[in-house]
Order: sequence, then structure tokens, then C-alpha cells
Amino acid sequence: MRNLMVKLKYDGKDFCGWQVQNGLRTVQSVFQETLWDVLGEKTPIHGCSRTDSGVHANEFCVSFRTECSVPCDRLPLALNAKLPCDIAAFDCIQMPNDFHARYNCRGKQYRYLILNSQLRDPFLHARALWYKYPLDAEFLNAQAQDYLGMHDFSAFCSAGSDVQDKVRTVSQCGVRRLADNPDMLEFTVTADGFLYNMVRIMVGTLLQMSAGMLKKDSIPDIILSKDRNKSGFTAAACGLYLNKVLY
Amino acid sequence: MRNLMVKLKYDGKDFCGWQVQNGLRTVQSVFQETLWDVLGEKTPIHGCSRTDSGVHANEFCVSFRTECSVPCDRLPLALNAKLPCDIAAFDCIQMPNDFHARYNCRGKQYRYLILNSQLRDPFLHARALWYKYPLDAEFLNAQAQDYLGMHDFSAFCSAGSDVQDKVRTVSQCGVRRLADNPDMLEFTVTADGFLYNMVRIMVGTLLQMSAGMLKKDSIPDIILSKDRNKSGFTAAACGLYLNKVLY
Repeated sequence: MRNLMVKLKYDGKDFCGWQVQNGLRTVQSVFQETLWDVLGEKTPIHGCSRTDSGVHANEFCVSFRTECSVPCDRLPLALNAKLPCDIAAFDCIQMPNDFHARYNCRGKQYRYLILNSQLRDPFLHARALWYKYPLDAEFLNAQAQDYLGMHDFSAFCSAGSDVQDKVRTVSQCGVRRLADNPDMLEFTVTADGFLYNMVRIMVGTLLQMSAGMLKKDSIPDIILSKDRNKSGFTAAACGLYLNKVLY
Repeated sequence: MRNLMVKLKYDGKDFCGWQVQNGLRTVQSVFQETLWDVLGEKTPIHGCSRTDSGVHANEFCVSFRTECSVPCDRLPLALNAKLPCDIAAFDCIQMPNDFHARYNCRGKQYRYLILNSQLRDPFLHARALWYKYPLDAEFLNAQAQDYLGMHDFSAFCSAGSDVQDKVRTVSQCGVRRLADNPDMLEFTVTADGFLYNMVRIMVGTLLQMSAGMLKKDSIPDIILSKDRNKSGFTAAACGLYLNKVLY
């Protein structure tokens, strides 16, 4: 019995997030059907996190135990041959017996893309937030540094979460304009864990500071308030990518 | 009565090409419906070329005459507010009275994208040709230079074309690996005009030379043969982008 980890990429546009939900097309339900078909056994699978409807993944890790003897270097190819065009497997690694994609996760990096242009781009539909008003990447980057460190991020957690401990440690955070497309802004954040909608509220808060609807340098006060009403709006799911999973 | 040119971008995946066809979703039919709605008059429109089903455009030019007084800098925004997510207008210029987007076109540049990786990429589905076998960009680039110049490109024209004169002048042609994604190869070609499927057959010919199914350095002989049976396969539409239109 091997314990395997498979890495996936997916375009979240036509998925109702990761987790199985009755009657809805989710990444977990589509992936596990294909995996069970390839392995010939209905083994339970564990995802590294739950992504919301419309959120994308450049790297999403799944672990499962299997009796199947398919070699690790063959499994992604066998899966890709049967997976639909919006999911692909790109790696498979044999892990220690007690490894679990969710419980062993030490941290994650998310990426949030903003198309900052007066004009829509058909190639970025559902793949970036379209934001028409001018943005200053250096200003946003300077403000984003206030997210760094260990804080109670209650003000950056949507209602509906049943998580008790809302302390998380942000180890990296930044905003930059992409070199190959100056209309694109990229927000990246790395932390040991994330609360419900945390990245999207972080982005919405920066955008509202840029627009003057929230005060400059107010992130430390918003964090201290632990009040969701003090932070900004929840930026659209379509701009968000789970980018790296750290073990 | 002004004569205007509007520039469009579109994701060709869900369009049956440019030209109006009964009962099919085409770029022309969707765009002219929106334009007529915005202008308040059913003016005939002229596209710079016909793109095939599934082919994309980073720049496609359309000209039309109008009595409507909407300023040029407002028209793209007014159109974008009503166009579907897979088309956007990004420029509008007033042209001389006798300008026609197709007849005045002096040349075009096409771009063809190839995902050269063992693994599929969900974000490039329907946006690049997926080619699994190793490709040598320098070899392909060297071979592509044989397309340069004025030639009868009959060997690079699909059956079904009623064009008589098949002489075209290729002024630029090249293959390179993209700096920001080494799994991506880009073929670009600029000419004064293109025959039916010409770019896709040029790409298919290079890929078959790479695979050893066509002889190295055989492009001059294939051109001289004027025989479609001597050139390579027609590479898939999804990798092709109309990139620039020259006036």
C-alpha cells in the first residue's frame, strides 16, 4: 500500500470549487472519478485545501493510499488522458505512510491577478479581476507590507467560517506589475494558513485604499480591530490562484 | 458621414470564425449586432480578413461608415459594455472616406503558439497547440527562414480556395521559445497576404520536419512543387492568432 501525492493545475471557471457537493461539478468529484477509474479502486482522497467556486490552481496537492502498482512517472499521463480539459495532473510523488495533503501542509502561496486597464481583455475573462481605475503598484506594495507577521486576521475572514483560531503568520506579501504585460498587477501572499476569503479581502482592502475609500496606512488598525466591517470588499474569485503548497 | 476603423480582440474558441453564417455564432454577427445597437443604424461592416473557426485575434480591424456622432474615444467603451466576454474593442480611428479594412490592408502578422510539454496545461486549452514531442526552436527557426521572400505558395493552400493568384511575399518569419514560459514556442509570420490555411500548413510542415517525416531543408522544394500533398498537415486552429494588421 503506497501513499501518493499528485499535483494538479486547474482552471476554476467551470468548477464549484474543490469539495464534493451534491449535483455540482467540483474539482474533487471530477478528479476522484478519474483517479478511481485509473487505479481500479475507490480510495478516499485528501486535498491540500478547499478552493472556492471560480478560484484557480497552479498547484493543488492531493494525497491518497493505493494498492495499484502504476509507476509515479506514469500516473499523471494516465490521468491527463482521461481528465477534462480544465484539469491536469503534473506530478506524482510517493510520500511517507502518514503523509496527509491537508494536515501536513506547512503553508501556501496565493497569487491574485488584476487587469488594470480601461479595456477588457477577452483572453483574461474569468482569469483576472478587471479593475478600470489607475493603480500605483509601488503604493500597493508598500501598504501590503503591513500584512506581514503573525496577527489575528479576524477582520479578513468572511462570516460563515467555523474556525476558532484566527491567528496566521504571513511570511511574504507583495504587489508588482508584470514585466511582460504592464496592464497586469500581481498580488502574492504566503502564509502558514489562510482564513475563509482572506486573500480576496486582503486584495479588496488594498483596492479600497487605492481608491481613497479606506485610509492610507490603516491596515495595522484594521487588523487590530478584528472587525470584518473595517476591511475592504471581497475581491472576485476569478483573480485568485493557489500558486504553491509548502510541506 | 464618418468612415471609422475599430480594432477588436477576440478569443476564437466559441466562434465559428469571422464571417456571418446562417444560424452560427460568428464574430461578425455578434459584433455587428452590438455595433448597430450602439450606433442606432444598420451600417454594413468590413473585416480585414476572414478568420476560421477557433482562430483568435489580438488585433482584428473592422471599418464602416456612420452618421452617428459618438466620439472615437468613447466608442470602444460603449461597445465593450454590450459585447460578450470573448470579444472586446480596444481602439477607434477616423479614416479617410475611401478606406476599407480589407482592400487597404497591406499585410498581416500571425502568431502561432505551441505548448511543447509532455503535460497538458488547463490554462492553455484551446489557446495553443499541445505538442508532446521535443522541439528544437533554433532548428525550426533556421528552417522557417526558407519561407521568406516572394513565392507561389500553392503548396501551402488548402483545397476549397477560389483564389487564382497564389503568389505572396513573406517579409518576416521566425520561431522562438518564450522567455517567460520555456514550454511555449511561438511561430510568427508577416506577409502581404495569406492563402487559405497557409499559416497552419507552414506550422504543420515545420513540425513534420522536426519529427523527421519531412526532410530537413526541404521547404524550397515543397514551395517549388506547388503541390499541397508535399507539405505538412494543417496545424490546429486553436494555436493561431491574427496578431497585427498593416495599413
